[in-house]
Amino acid sequence: MNTSSPSCAVLGAAGYIGQHFARVLGDHPWFGLPRLVGSERHSGRLLSEVWELSEEPPERLARARIEVASPARLAREGVRIAFSALPSGVAGPVESECRRRGISVFSNSADHRMDPRVPLLVPEVNGSHLQLTGSPGRAPLLVTNPNCTTTGLVIALAPVRHLLRPRVIHVATYQALSGAGFPGISSISMADNIVPFIAEEEEKIPREAGRILGKLDRGRVHPLAIPILANCARVGVRDGHLEAVTIEAAARPSRAELEAAWRRFDPLAGQPLPSAPHPPVVLRVERDRPQPRRDLWAGTPASARGMAVVVGRVRWDPPFLRFFLLSHNAVRGGAGGSVLNAEFAAFQGRLPGFAGGVVR
Amino acid sequence: MNTSSPSCAVLGAAGYIGQHFARVLGDHPWFGLPRLVGSERHSGRLLSEVWELSEEPPERLARARIEVASPARLAREGVRIAFSALPSGVAGPVESECRRRGISVFSNSADHRMDPRVPLLVPEVNGSHLQLTGSPGRAPLLVTNPNCTTTGLVIALAPVRHLLRPRVIHVATYQALSGAGFPGISSISMADNIVPFIAEEEEKIPREAGRILGKLDRGRVHPLAIPILANCARVGVRDGHLEAVTIEAAARPSRAELEAAWRRFDPLAGQPLPSAPHPPVVLRVERDRPQPRRDLWAGTPASARGMAVVVGRVRWDPPFLRFFLLSHNAVRGGAGGSVLNAEFAAFQGRLPGFAGGVVR
Amino acid sequence: MNTSSPSCAVLGAAGYIGQHFARVLGDHPWFGLPRLVGSERHSGRLLSEVWELSEEPPERLARARIEVASPARLAREGVRIAFSALPSGVAGPVESECRRRGISVFSNSADHRMDPRVPLLVPEVNGSHLQLTGSPGRAPLLVTNPNCTTTGLVIALAPVRHLLRPRVIHVATYQALSGAGFPGISSISMADNIVPFIAEEEEKIPREAGRILGKLDRGRVHPLAIPILANCARVGVRDGHLEAVTIEAAARPSRAELEAAWRRFDPLAGQPLPSAPHPPVVLRVERDRPQPRRDLWAGTPASARGMAVVVGRVRWDPPFLRFFLLSHNAVRGGAGGSVLNAEFAAFQGRLPGFAGGVVR
Amino acid sequence: MNTSSPSCAVLGAAGYIGQHFARVLGDHPWFGLPRLVGSERHSGRLLSEVWELSEEPPERLARARIEVASPARLAREGVRIAFSALPSGVAGPVESECRRRGISVFSNSADHRMDPRVPLLVPEVNGSHLQLTGSPGRAPLLVTNPNCTTTGLVIALAPVRHLLRPRVIHVATYQALSGAGFPGISSISMADNIVPFIAEEEEKIPREAGRILGKLDRGRVHPLAIPILANCARVGVRDGHLEAVTIEAAARPSRAELEAAWRRFDPLAGQPLPSAPHPPVVLRVERDRPQPRRDLWAGTPASARGMAVVVGRVRWDPPFLRFFLLSHNAVRGGAGGSVLNAEFAAFQGRLPGFAGGVVR
Repeated sequence: MNTSSPSCAVLGAAGYIGQHFARVLGDHPWFGLPRLVGSERHSGRLLSEVWELSEEPPERLARARIEVASPARLAREGVRIAFSALPSGVAGPVESECRRRGISVFSNSADHRMDPRVPLLVPEVNGSHLQLTGSPGRAPLLVTNPNCTTTGLVIALAPVRHLLRPRVIHVATYQALSGAGFPGISSISMADNIVPFIAEEEEKIPREAGRILGKLDRGRVHPLAIPILANCARVGVRDGHLEAVTIEAAARPSRAELEAAWRRFDPLAGQPLPSAPHPPVVLRVERDRPQPRRDLWAGTPASARGMAVVVGRVRWDPPFLRFFLLSHNAVRGGAGGSVLNAEFAAFQGRLPGFAGGVVR
Repeated sequence: MNTSSPSCAVLGAAGYIGQHFARVLGDHPWFGLPRLVGSERHSGRLLSEVWELSEEPPERLARARIEVASPARLAREGVRIAFSALPSGVAGPVESECRRRGISVFSNSADHRMDPRVPLLVPEVNGSHLQLTGSPGRAPLLVTNPNCTTTGLVIALAPVRHLLRPRVIHVATYQALSGAGFPGISSISMADNIVPFIAEEEEKIPREAGRILGKLDRGRVHPLAIPILANCARVGVRDGHLEAVTIEAAARPSRAELEAAWRRFDPLAGQPLPSAPHPPVVLRVERDRPQPRRDLWAGTPASARGMAVVVGRVRWDPPFLRFFLLSHNAVRGGAGGSVLNAEFAAFQGRLPGFAGGVVR
Repeated sequence: MNTSSPSCAVLGAAGYIGQHFARVLGDHPWFGLPRLVGSERHSGRLLSEVWELSEEPPERLARARIEVASPARLAREGVRIAFSALPSGVAGPVESECRRRGISVFSNSADHRMDPRVPLLVPEVNGSHLQLTGSPGRAPLLVTNPNCTTTGLVIALAPVRHLLRPRVIHVATYQALSGAGFPGISSISMADNIVPFIAEEEEKIPREAGRILGKLDRGRVHPLAIPILANCARVGVRDGHLEAVTIEAAARPSRAELEAAWRRFDPLAGQPLPSAPHPPVVLRVERDRPQPRRDLWAGTPASARGMAVVVGRVRWDPPFLRFFLLSHNAVRGGAGGSVLNAEFAAFQGRLPGFAGGVVR
Repeated sequence: MNTSSPSCAVLGAAGYIGQHFARVLGDHPWFGLPRLVGSERHSGRLLSEVWELSEEPPERLARARIEVASPARLAREGVRIAFSALPSGVAGPVESECRRRGISVFSNSADHRMDPRVPLLVPEVNGSHLQLTGSPGRAPLLVTNPNCTTTGLVIALAPVRHLLRPRVIHVATYQALSGAGFPGISSISMADNIVPFIAEEEEKIPREAGRILGKLDRGRVHPLAIPILANCARVGVRDGHLEAVTIEAAARPSRAELEAAWRRFDPLAGQPLPSAPHPPVVLRVERDRPQPRRDLWAGTPASARGMAVVVGRVRWDPPFLRFFLLSHNAVRGGAGGSVLNAEFAAFQGRLPGFAGGVVR
């Protein structure tokens, strides 16, 4: 299968999300081994030398070198898919240039998320938004996935929102250190501490969630018009964003209906996407779950570890529904989200150069 | 002044809150050095041997011994004030027995908080509720202070609630390890983790806050009838409860009015209570405060360190007001709250045996 | 293979090491699923309900119940192998009683470690000490493995000790929270702190290491007569004991000889023991390894994860050799060590009731 | 007193040690308020805006601004004393230039520590080395203090070294996050982890300790010729370096003699230096001290908080003495050490422009 796959690259490969891209793509059944593109600062270094994840680097990439390469050169040398972990501000023009050069981009960066023609995609939630890219053909794609906290939230909301008809959604976050990238936040600032501020996060959540949950109509997304009020804080946990959610609902489903909705939710069932977890929402009934340390890597099958969203502590006192959710910020909310988007686009036959038939 | 003060005792002196009582009372200008009453398990040990606080034990109590003593014996030996850090379930009958024996009780325990005749008191918020104890005289008092998270919340709400006319109050907590007492939670459970469950906490907050913010009418408190929705979690911080608050308001004051209300709030101004902070609410304007490590000990004068509630990150997007607050769970939300209640009662001339005139 | 395996049990199954036993034995190719024996306090609870490890409980045991059972009853009901995670003091008599009843015991507890007739066994280091159990036959075994810090130390020393001829061995430990079991140490005590005291640890290391590295002669172990000076401290890391070792040597091998000795060391090569790591010592050359978070689960093949000892930062300034080592205290230094001992005894044909031929 | 004091400055004022200089000098009885000199990056910012310490910034400096200023300009504008927290490499030439311009320098930086004419000074240990600066007069001084781990070690050794006659000294460190400055180490790297590597630290300890404990003879320091073997590791504690020390001794004093030596040690007794702790070594007899969280701020009087070294867990099994020590790396081992050196020089009448008589 790799032999028929177009060549791919990771942009921003030396960073924390970039390394998660390398981890997933170092052993991916559809996409070939990526080239690792980084900045001058890391140029020439082995992936293993910049590696910061707890797991060992993927065997087939550990001794690959970070290289500096322009979109033009990547395109010239045959790269057709780029996974972008570039920082905001840098990402925008580079990603656009990639697309101009014929490279499809699956980006975890914020720069293009609100572009009207760019899908902000979570396949289980708004797969139809992929149509924003136009009719399937030879034009390269630009597809983004949302901010890490937004991803977990919309996946947890998707199964129950029509049952509940939310009037207001409240979310308070307990965000992991790695959400700030590497090196991110000083260990001194976080020692025995919480920092109740994450730049732009409280604005991104309603904006991005509104777009994802919005309705696609005549080639435009009409955002959901429900207020989402966020309070965001950074806590001293390495990985895994926990969120406390309270929904004021207009409807009154039974508790059993809500639980069944979460449990049955699996819109990608039947699509053999390696990174798609089945089910996407894991509902826990213990009194003290989800917890970052225990639920971080939820997701089956094994190729979708860290891709499920864990929901727990459901309390339904109409009109208020409360629950906690946990998602792996760097996997489901980061690199894994982008890779799933690429798999989804490929399976839909929308990824140029990728022979749709092959993957079935 | 100590010479005229009735003898006092700390009940549950070996525990975490008990030690905070010893810290405050080891150097208190009004109340004499307390006797340290504990369980069999700690009987005979020096306070310094069971000490768990970061600061050194108070010099005058370090070598005092934990003793086992019944209310009857304490009463017989002249104790007239007891500060109770007893665990729930144990506290109730012991505190009642103390009062029957003529000992006034200021309790941090939950057992009597909802008794119709027992004030659940935060002097800055509902000082008038002290009248529940009946006409000032010779009958010993039983006064409780609320749960640690509730205390911070009601103090932060008090200055702005009439301006806002809240429709719903949402709170998500980031609670410190010491809130569970000593030994409390295993270090294994909390390593690189958050536990989104604290037994009964989400029920206590609305119940206790409702009572404190309720109206006293003809000897009864009519609880506030506004929904308070709490999501509570334990995080890996030693001391200091952080809370994210979102209020949906019926009124639309200006931001300046809200800030002024917090800044001017000082209902105990002019009452020289040693543990009363002036102001009780410290409003911070930095973009990333309050933080547990930095704001834990807020409170002036020095005798009121750890007694102020720090409010920050105020965001007012009508009808939604959001802010974070921090309070020291073991001081303002624990031992310090009980001691302030005793000072308040004494100053009001309601503490039997305590010569009101002396304290002025 | 399970069909021919004698029935086994875990004693102390609800504790932290007990759960690691369940984790390993829940999917072991030689030994059948264990019965889970615990104290009254946990009796009747599902393993999943008491579970404290980060990984999910083993599928085949998650819904097994902790039971209270005497050695007599276990023996009567066919148990022939017991893995003991009982606490010191409790373990001794129970383990002796098991043996009397015909149950072979592989114990992680300290009580029998210094018994002259009981092997204190680390198969890669002193496999010959298994002979202390007498001639292979039908008598049930009692085999112990050392304290968690000692295990890592003797495995790291074994390959190089004859090259170095140590005069004095110094070790300072950075011990993980889980070394104290569950609940172990209060999260309050460890927040932003180190505790430089672990009861009896500094005595156990020289005593146990001396015995393991000692010479077996005419049925007796003559302990190694080299001073081992330990300084032990508890640090705020969940799992993985780090140790700083300095050896003053009488001999002067080259650095290359030392590294080769570590790399080539594999005394169990050719013995297909599932829990035996190959190699047992992983030598890292990076400037900042080993680290608990990264090296905790070292060990190949997959069935021996967490069983290797990682050595790094080797500095050889004759006569002083310095290095750091890391081992998983609850796996290599705990449950995994006991299970490896059982595999080793079985493979040697010394485990009564276990058909030696089958395992080859 | 401030009126007669020569004007002073902090170099590198925005960094972690620089802020500790500001903390101490913001309220120092001898030296006036310092100018705060930093790099372009921080130029113009208020001290309170860059503040990273847990305590609030000193009132009199909170609104002082970081400025960029050359040694020439500082000299021209009357600065006569500079406290240097400059990073290695940068410090050397700037400090030399300051001295050429008539500014005495008290430096915490490493660059000049091994200069034969520059004292590497810990007043309680090698006060006589101040003579290296030549005869007291008008020439400006350049005085350094050692690396943070070395400082604690030499203070703990000083009282007992002549009693013990060490043959070899072993030290393993548990170093705090703040030892790496701000931002220093990523919170991601340290989460649930230890890093057993600190660049150059293991070389600095023997080199600097050897020089400090060396003998001054005819204007030269002859370093102590005893091997000091260090293993250094970074642990997840905010402040406070813990060290495990083992000494192999040639002499056999009694344990009582050793304890008395530590307790009586106070070479600065009678010199009213504000930052000098009395005693400089606090000996603890509890079984589990010193601990960073509890012993960090040891030191009396109040002006010398954080300046004492706490020694505990003394075990004397001749010829091996073991103990743990703790010192505040940023106070005793940083800014406080430099300020004490300046006080000591001033009191000795060796600080040009500082009227010796005044301070008595």
